[in-house]
Amino acid sequence: MDEKALSQLLKQVKGGQVSVDDAVGRLKDLPFAELGYATVDTHRSLRFGFPEVVLGGPKTVEQLLGIVGTLVERKQTVLVTRLQQEKAEALLARFPKGEYHPVARIFHIKQGKRKAGRVAVVTAGTSDIPVAEEAALTAEAMGAEVRRVYDVGVAGIHRLLRRREEIQDCHAAVVVAGMEGALPGVVGGLVGIPVVAVPTSVGYGANMQGVSALLTMVNSCASNVAVVNIDNGFGGGFYATLISRTKGRR
Amino acid sequence: MDEKALSQLLKQVKGGQVSVDDAVGRLKDLPFAELGYATVDTHRSLRFGFPEVVLGGPKTVEQLLGIVGTLVERKQTVLVTRLQQEKAEALLARFPKGEYHPVARIFHIKQGKRKAGRVAVVTAGTSDIPVAEEAALTAEAMGAEVRRVYDVGVAGIHRLLRRREEIQDCHAAVVVAGMEGALPGVVGGLVGIPVVAVPTSVGYGANMQGVSALLTMVNSCASNVAVVNIDNGFGGGFYATLISRTKGRR
Amino acid sequence: MDEKALSQLLKQVKGGQVSVDDAVGRLKDLPFAELGYATVDTHRSLRFGFPEVVLGGPKTVEQLLGIVGTLVERKQTVLVTRLQQEKAEALLARFPKGEYHPVARIFHIKQGKRKAGRVAVVTAGTSDIPVAEEAALTAEAMGAEVRRVYDVGVAGIHRLLRRREEIQDCHAAVVVAGMEGALPGVVGGLVGIPVVAVPTSVGYGANMQGVSALLTMVNSCASNVAVVNIDNGFGGGFYATLISRTKGRR
Amino acid sequence: MDEKALSQLLKQVKGGQVSVDDAVGRLKDLPFAELGYATVDTHRSLRFGFPEVVLGGPKTVEQLLGIVGTLVERKQTVLVTRLQQEKAEALLARFPKGEYHPVARIFHIKQGKRKAGRVAVVTAGTSDIPVAEEAALTAEAMGAEVRRVYDVGVAGIHRLLRRREEIQDCHAAVVVAGMEGALPGVVGGLVGIPVVAVPTSVGYGANMQGVSALLTMVNSCASNVAVVNIDNGFGGGFYATLISRTKGRR
Amino acid sequence: MDEKALSQLLKQVKGGQVSVDDAVGRLKDLPFAELGYATVDTHRSLRFGFPEVVLGGPKTVEQLLGIVGTLVERKQTVLVTRLQQEKAEALLARFPKGEYHPVARIFHIKQGKRKAGRVAVVTAGTSDIPVAEEAALTAEAMGAEVRRVYDVGVAGIHRLLRRREEIQDCHAAVVVAGMEGALPGVVGGLVGIPVVAVPTSVGYGANMQGVSALLTMVNSCASNVAVVNIDNGFGGGFYATLISRTKGRR
Amino acid sequence: MDEKALSQLLKQVKGGQVSVDDAVGRLKDLPFAELGYATVDTHRSLRFGFPEVVLGGPKTVEQLLGIVGTLVERKQTVLVTRLQQEKAEALLARFPKGEYHPVARIFHIKQGKRKAGRVAVVTAGTSDIPVAEEAALTAEAMGAEVRRVYDVGVAGIHRLLRRREEIQDCHAAVVVAGMEGALPGVVGGLVGIPVVAVPTSVGYGANMQGVSALLTMVNSCASNVAVVNIDNGFGGGFYATLISRTKGRR
Amino acid sequence: MDEKALSQLLKQVKGGQVSVDDAVGRLKDLPFAELGYATVDTHRSLRFGFPEVVLGGPKTVEQLLGIVGTLVERKQTVLVTRLQQEKAEALLARFPKGEYHPVARIFHIKQGKRKAGRVAVVTAGTSDIPVAEEAALTAEAMGAEVRRVYDVGVAGIHRLLRRREEIQDCHAAVVVAGMEGALPGVVGGLVGIPVVAVPTSVGYGANMQGVSALLTMVNSCASNVAVVNIDNGFGGGFYATLISRTKGRR
Amino acid sequence: MDEKALSQLLKQVKGGQVSVDDAVGRLKDLPFAELGYATVDTHRSLRFGFPEVVLGGPKTVEQLLGIVGTLVERKQTVLVTRLQQEKAEALLARFPKGEYHPVARIFHIKQGKRKAGRVAVVTAGTSDIPVAEEAALTAEAMGAEVRRVYDVGVAGIHRLLRRREEIQDCHAAVVVAGMEGALPGVVGGLVGIPVVAVPTSVGYGANMQGVSALLTMVNSCASNVAVVNIDNGFGGGFYATLISRTKGRR
Repeated sequence: MDEKALSQLLKQVKGGQVSVDDAVGRLKDLPFAELGYATVDTHRSLRFGFPEVVLGGPKTVEQLLGIVGTLVERKQTVLVTRLQQEKAEALLARFPKGEYHPVARIFHIKQGKRKAGRVAVVTAGTSDIPVAEEAALTAEAMGAEVRRVYDVGVAGIHRLLRRREEIQDCHAAVVVAGMEGALPGVVGGLVGIPVVAVPTSVGYGANMQGVSALLTMVNSCASNVAVVNIDNGFGGGFYATLISRTKGRR
Repeated sequence: MDEKALSQLLKQVKGGQVSVDDAVGRLKDLPFAELGYATVDTHRSLRFGFPEVVLGGPKTVEQLLGIVGTLVERKQTVLVTRLQQEKAEALLARFPKGEYHPVARIFHIKQGKRKAGRVAVVTAGTSDIPVAEEAALTAEAMGAEVRRVYDVGVAGIHRLLRRREEIQDCHAAVVVAGMEGALPGVVGGLVGIPVVAVPTSVGYGANMQGVSALLTMVNSCASNVAVVNIDNGFGGGFYATLISRTKGRR
Repeated sequence: MDEKALSQLLKQVKGGQVSVDDAVGRLKDLPFAELGYATVDTHRSLRFGFPEVVLGGPKTVEQLLGIVGTLVERKQTVLVTRLQQEKAEALLARFPKGEYHPVARIFHIKQGKRKAGRVAVVTAGTSDIPVAEEAALTAEAMGAEVRRVYDVGVAGIHRLLRRREEIQDCHAAVVVAGMEGALPGVVGGLVGIPVVAVPTSVGYGANMQGVSALLTMVNSCASNVAVVNIDNGFGGGFYATLISRTKGRR
Repeated sequence: MDEKALSQLLKQVKGGQVSVDDAVGRLKDLPFAELGYATVDTHRSLRFGFPEVVLGGPKTVEQLLGIVGTLVERKQTVLVTRLQQEKAEALLARFPKGEYHPVARIFHIKQGKRKAGRVAVVTAGTSDIPVAEEAALTAEAMGAEVRRVYDVGVAGIHRLLRRREEIQDCHAAVVVAGMEGALPGVVGGLVGIPVVAVPTSVGYGANMQGVSALLTMVNSCASNVAVVNIDNGFGGGFYATLISRTKGRR
Repeated sequence: MDEKALSQLLKQVKGGQVSVDDAVGRLKDLPFAELGYATVDTHRSLRFGFPEVVLGGPKTVEQLLGIVGTLVERKQTVLVTRLQQEKAEALLARFPKGEYHPVARIFHIKQGKRKAGRVAVVTAGTSDIPVAEEAALTAEAMGAEVRRVYDVGVAGIHRLLRRREEIQDCHAAVVVAGMEGALPGVVGGLVGIPVVAVPTSVGYGANMQGVSALLTMVNSCASNVAVVNIDNGFGGGFYATLISRTKGRR
Repeated sequence: MDEKALSQLLKQVKGGQVSVDDAVGRLKDLPFAELGYATVDTHRSLRFGFPEVVLGGPKTVEQLLGIVGTLVERKQTVLVTRLQQEKAEALLARFPKGEYHPVARIFHIKQGKRKAGRVAVVTAGTSDIPVAEEAALTAEAMGAEVRRVYDVGVAGIHRLLRRREEIQDCHAAVVVAGMEGALPGVVGGLVGIPVVAVPTSVGYGANMQGVSALLTMVNSCASNVAVVNIDNGFGGGFYATLISRTKGRR
Repeated sequence: MDEKALSQLLKQVKGGQVSVDDAVGRLKDLPFAELGYATVDTHRSLRFGFPEVVLGGPKTVEQLLGIVGTLVERKQTVLVTRLQQEKAEALLARFPKGEYHPVARIFHIKQGKRKAGRVAVVTAGTSDIPVAEEAALTAEAMGAEVRRVYDVGVAGIHRLLRRREEIQDCHAAVVVAGMEGALPGVVGGLVGIPVVAVPTSVGYGANMQGVSALLTMVNSCASNVAVVNIDNGFGGGFYATLISRTKGRR
Repeated sequence: MDEKALSQLLKQVKGGQVSVDDAVGRLKDLPFAELGYATVDTHRSLRFGFPEVVLGGPKTVEQLLGIVGTLVERKQTVLVTRLQQEKAEALLARFPKGEYHPVARIFHIKQGKRKAGRVAVVTAGTSDIPVAEEAALTAEAMGAEVRRVYDVGVAGIHRLLRRREEIQDCHAAVVVAGMEGALPGVVGGLVGIPVVAVPTSVGYGANMQGVSALLTMVNSCASNVAVVNIDNGFGGGFYATLISRTKGRR
């Protein structure tokens, strides 16, 4: 049942051709009926206050040009993740207002103004920076003020200690770490804000492409640590920014 | 170096017995030095606005009476988790103002008044309720208003749909699920708030004591889902309440 | 919005107090609104032609007496699975028309008459029989004619060969096997009907509580084999009976 | 012992050169004896009503030309799966009546007319479509009427809800999902037909090349879900079509 | 079709009531037909020269008394494995000629005389002895001469070296080891006979109930090592004795 | 202590320069002393009756030319496994009497005459043939008479049944299978000889590069099955031939 | 060949009854020959400067009384690990000079005087103390001076920081941690001495009985961390003490 | 708070502008305050007596030229690990005093003189040599005297026995092994020094990229074995050298 049919039914109720009881009977099943007018994008945008993010990696240049074009027309912010260099160039040629960040592999066109809180993005080592930048740029695109605290892994804990206040002062922290993945638990013990842990596949051997780091983080004894998927910088940045915006909702 | 020694050194600087340069040299190492006056509880309490929670399961009755007694004297809220019935009875005999919740295995003494936001606690099945109650009671102890939305698993999705608004209206949701663990991803797709996913060990066979549910949740394609350890109801409730309080921090 | 409110709205449309357009606007959101009158049991029964099965294991005697009583009043067939002996005795005392099958741990009260097709239940060894009986009794409760072909494991393949026709003549086969779990693939190669493979936790060592058998079955090179969870005899019997009834739907 | 030798023996029995007892002795071992006239293809075709499907990937062009040629001569339907583009071109040059579907990597020559029931093919995301198309084209080649319901993953559950009836009206559904793999359980809860779940290797990190999705599906709490191997679109389509044809067998 | 029916058919061929062609047609399907006279035990005994071994653990005393009684009547050797003490006592009361070995949990009644070759049974530690004794007593029951070389693990390799000749002089060696499971590879490097490796669940932590030892043995760089299941002493003894008897077959 | 030093010591004992007690003292430590004259190759050849096999894959052409040259000079049989085509050509140019088998990737120079028993090499599918040929050619190089029984997987069990006798008549069987890995257990149930199971990495998805097939084989309920590493055709052929030669040792 | 036989042979060489060449031939094989006089204890004791430690758990009281009695007679230090309370009492009754430590489950009789270096034993939480005490008492029994630094886990890192110097001043540190297992890497980053990491099975859910903690430690990015088995406190204490004694060896 | 600010505060205390109590208050938080002057390199060098090692693999040539240049200026020893050939050539062109070892992929510039103990580096096979050389060159760069004992795997144990003394005479041994990973346990049983086990990813099939070897080593029953990550030759060499230098610390 689409909007037209619904309107039709209501007119028949109004005109007396269909009784109220019959109409109730047919509308009861609406949850499972064809709606037609519903669209993913609109609902999502309403729910999160941010348009659907485009996963660029597996899409063709043609598909990307189409999707981005539609979003630009609707004056919506554009965020394309995991985008390869060559596809980015095609997008930049068509949409010169966009920016491409090769380390984070993110393409971004700012439209309108968004506002979120302060998000710290912390990494254990320099090899974790691509994932961290994916988180940081996502957060910035969503309106957050991002503080980057990079290369403060647990093998030299004092590097982290000197920057504790900077992190504590944020609304949430994304902590990115590969190998042993111990950093989020240590940060969680030092600060009183929610920590979103992002394991990375950086490492070798018993690291098993990040599974070891994931397990470490899930087992963290700090109660303010929750975990997203391996290498999921976008998810980490999104989740932390969502937390930082909780304020606006009350 | 404890507080007394520090005071002593500063007096010597003041009196000229120790030069400023010498004092700098000795204080440079302070981060790694014995402080003496630092205590875990105090710092933790300052950072999170909530005193350290006591894991009751492995402790003896004597240890528990001691710890709880100290907290009560300091007028701090008491929360003991994973507490067995027989130990709870010993605590209730000594501290009649406390309450014991046998399903959640939580002992609680309210002191003072705390304030946090609204937290939804959602479960897939009735077997997940003990873990969910651990989350709910933790959140309530921390001052949150909790909405319980139980037994709305994905095998009958309309049960969840009718309660969507109730969840959406909270600041964060704890979603508890065993077996296939699909519920947090579905809730994440329906609401625009941070979802804290808690896998449970409910299930059998290929569930592998909750590892399967954990993997499902970590792989969720909804961006507003982060995960804590299997059966960690306390962690889920703590994290969601922390999010709900973020408002207060700005 | 519950049925009463819906009826109220429609009356207002009929009476002209609410315009058709306004009513469309409010009904558009119905998919996510509170329905109130929806109940799990009824819908499930309509969808599958069989009432919801009760998982007996974790429920108390009181809960079971209540649930079974309700179903009996509504003249619905009762099927309680994984039911312990002592709880079964309490049910039998109250509902003397019921039957309890201790090997399969199933309690059953037949009401009305159901009709489904022919289902073969095949096991590799005698230790797999409890799981197989759970499948067989489920299928019988759903109206299927069940053929039991037990103890025909691959270590003595001719035992299976002599009974091939008996299996082939069914609409679907449930094949139950532990240890190496090879039987479903062999049966799948011999007969031209859908095979539902049920791995069991029978075995030891590298069997890893049935995970090894599960993997074997998932990797089967026979195209007419699909798999359910370890020890899930109920699921296997349910699925095969569903297939055997497909006929009635066209 | 082949057919000729068997005939010879029987003639000797008839002529009295071999006694009945001696013949019984020799025929007792027949189950394990060389038969000679048996051929895989024929038997399979008889059992399933569909000729053996050719796995194209690892075969050379020469082998494929030979096998397809033989099938064409015998007026049998041809279905080659996992076929690379360049090999497909060689087949098309020789057999211009064939069709090649590059997304599903299937080569197909229709011969005669087959009849099966209605099969829904459902996917969570667009990246699952290659596996879904392998299922859909297999089902069509076997005579099924296929309904494609693509991109209705659980992160936006209303997309699925509006198409529920379309799926419910089929005899069986193939549900294809990667990442968290939650879709088959949700579909299973919505419809009353057998669901064949196909996990895909789409995803990253803790998805572990589809193992995580496989585990989710095996643990589904919906009783009408059974599972085949990761990325096994062919198997899913074959199994669902087999179910849809069950009618013909009674 | 059983022996009687087969005889009947042949008589009809002889008498001309059934033509040779018709008889060929009916006998062609014999491989998949009901044979009736075939029995597992007899065939097995013929194939291996040893009657079927009875797995005692999951059987009831009544079942065991019945099975053992039948074997004794037929003058066959009896071997019951994994038999609990209390069931063994019931068997000994009825069959006083039997022997029970509590460490290996084997019950044995010798009947007739068997002959096999020399088998070494080697263990890493004293905790592996129950599994080793299961192997040794199985081999002895099958007629092998067994040499026990116990407690010669790799942490004190010279203990093994002094007994090398004793092992080398056998036809096959069963090497039983838990924890790291390194012994079979070391023995394989020292002797020129087939080594049957039996991992045990002895150990703790990363041993994972013997899985670690199993992996070690499967990865052995010695080419004369093959592996059976964890704790499968019976299988190890059976396989090694089979090798030792190979001589008789040529 | 090398041979010369030992001889020297004994001469001193003989001549009275060293007392018997002193010599006993020094010789007691001999187990851990330098032997010097021991060489790997010679001993291995003596132990197994077959010279050390050369793993060709990781070695350079220069290394291979050197090693093979030495073996040829000593009139020893040459067997190089896992040898790439281009390296094989360099070996053939220098040693024209050698043969290279590209499917099995084995290079072989026959020298002298070896004698072993009959070995069956059985495969489930055609994709398993490279591993099977590695086994078969190894067995032939060691003097065995090999019977190839290929493409008799469990999805069409009658293909295997017609060739049972052929396998039964051998001294040992190497059974090679990927995917579900069920064939070795089925063959083990049909024949009364030792079966050496070789899992292969053929398959996809839940096969996990052969780990699933390995687990199936280790869990086989047939007692005459032992297992070697995934894709270890050489090991399977070596072990089976060793069994077939056991005769010669008594 | 035992010591007597060796002495006999040398006398024959001296007396000329056996030629030097013949004697060389017989002695060449000595490493692999039966020596008779060799005993594990003696050699081990020579190698490590510490007698073999007795694993008490699986041994009977009779076996333990025998072994300990022998060691006491030889005036050797006695160390029995994983000893149950009731067995300990039997040992104390016979050997009143011994001590039993119920938390560490160690029985110890001091004999003679040993000297080793300084060993720190560090734990993350109080639940790790039993394993830590096993390490500490082992180290003390071997002559080390032990410094216990307990309950300094990463969730409150400053507790560890104030005790850094105490650890740094030792020759080696045993760091014991369950759950996420991050502590050894953090300690490794703070001090310049070898760290022996001992994972414990303390934790739940994704901890998987300590496997998660083990993986964390193996992946540590601190280069001065090496790992022993889960819950292997004895091994950790032994290894660290061995390091602390290295000094004496130069 | 950096050094300048600290100095400033102390001057104010001295001058009376700040009271002692106020200064104590501000310095109490120092553990978590900004230090500023601390640098990783210096501290690390002080703690271990060896400058930070540079992981060359993921760095660009420009980054490497910069880092190495700085170290050379400061007259510090340079050690770059996992360095590709082409980057090494760029470094050699600029720093002709450096050496590049292509097998171990290490670049090294010796500056000053270091002194450590004796370290044995032992390998099972020739394929393990790259990892072993990484260990050996690291140890030599740190001042150790290295003894290489290569290709002494357990499949030919006498090769190892002849070299036992050579290993025993060192302060620590690095034992490198892939496939089954049994060598460290065997070496541990033969010598009385700490053994650092390095599993390698050499092998195939059930080796699972070295995980199997890692598990073997962690389960070793020799108490003088501790383990580092798969293929971590650098870590093994570093740890063993640290042990060998323990002497210098007392």
